Amino acid sequence: MGKRRPDLSSPKAAEQAFYQAFADCDPAAMAGVWASEGVVCIHPGAPPVIGREAVLRSWSGILTGAARPSLRVVLLKRLEQGALAVHLVEEHIAAPEGDGDGTLVLATNIYCREQDGWRLLEHHASLPAAAQRHSLQ
Amino acid sequence: MGKRRPDLSSPKAAEQAFYQAFADCDPAAMAGVWASEGVVCIHPGAPPVIGREAVLRSWSGILTGAARPSLRVVLLKRLEQGALAVHLVEEHIAAPEGDGDGTLVLATNIYCREQDGWRLLEHHASLPAAAQRHSLQ
Repeated sequence: MGKRRPDLSSPKAAEQAFYQAFADCDPAAMAGVWASEGVVCIHPGAPPVIGREAVLRSWSGILTGAARPSLRVVLLKRLEQGALAVHLVEEHIAAPEGDGDGTLVLATNIYCREQDGWRLLEHHASLPAAAQRHSLQ
Repeated sequence: MGKRRPDLSSPKAAEQAFYQAFADCDPAAMAGVWASEGVVCIHPGAPPVIGREAVLRSWSGILTGAARPSLRVVLLKRLEQGALAVHLVEEHIAAPEGDGDGTLVLATNIYCREQDGWRLLEHHASLPAAAQRHSLQ
């Protein structure tokens, strides 16, 4: 768990906590966002990372010692049914110094409701083709 | 609807019908697999296609007049809760004449249960990095 307890009262709150942990380069906060089991993470252009420990290790490698990125997230579509929610988002990721448009990533985020709140179960991120890396909205 | 009524009695059956329509290059069968509304399709390296009509148009463009590919699908992980199911799969796609290993695509497929069976709601496909395009199993 991170230093603070993230608000996990809704899929939206869990998503905000996920991207806040990413923007803060905070592996401990990131660990608090993922589900307790059955998680999958596909980083852009990478094979899937399966299992909570492996996923947290992958994020720790990305976040530890990194400069905090500029991160803007646009929700394109959402669906919630019972204990699952699916969000399709655009992630606009740029270096802190802001050298241009940065990178556009598409992500499908799947959240599940656990006993103490909503957690991230799957994050599937991919890069649209280079010629199409402008905002879709 | 296609010439035949696909078996949509489970997420697994819907997935088989989806990949059969893909392998058969059959746009009509493909139309029978997708949910009635709220669908999203992300083809590898492409921006999202949102909405049933746009998604079916995109598949029609891909399938019409195409040579039937060699297609092998490996299920990496599945989850079903209530009226939603999530499958993470590897798609091994090769030209019919079989020129080598073909292409490995990762896909997150999300199915929903409608009144008359399970349908595909979202297909998010992406390419692992070139150096990692071997089977993950």
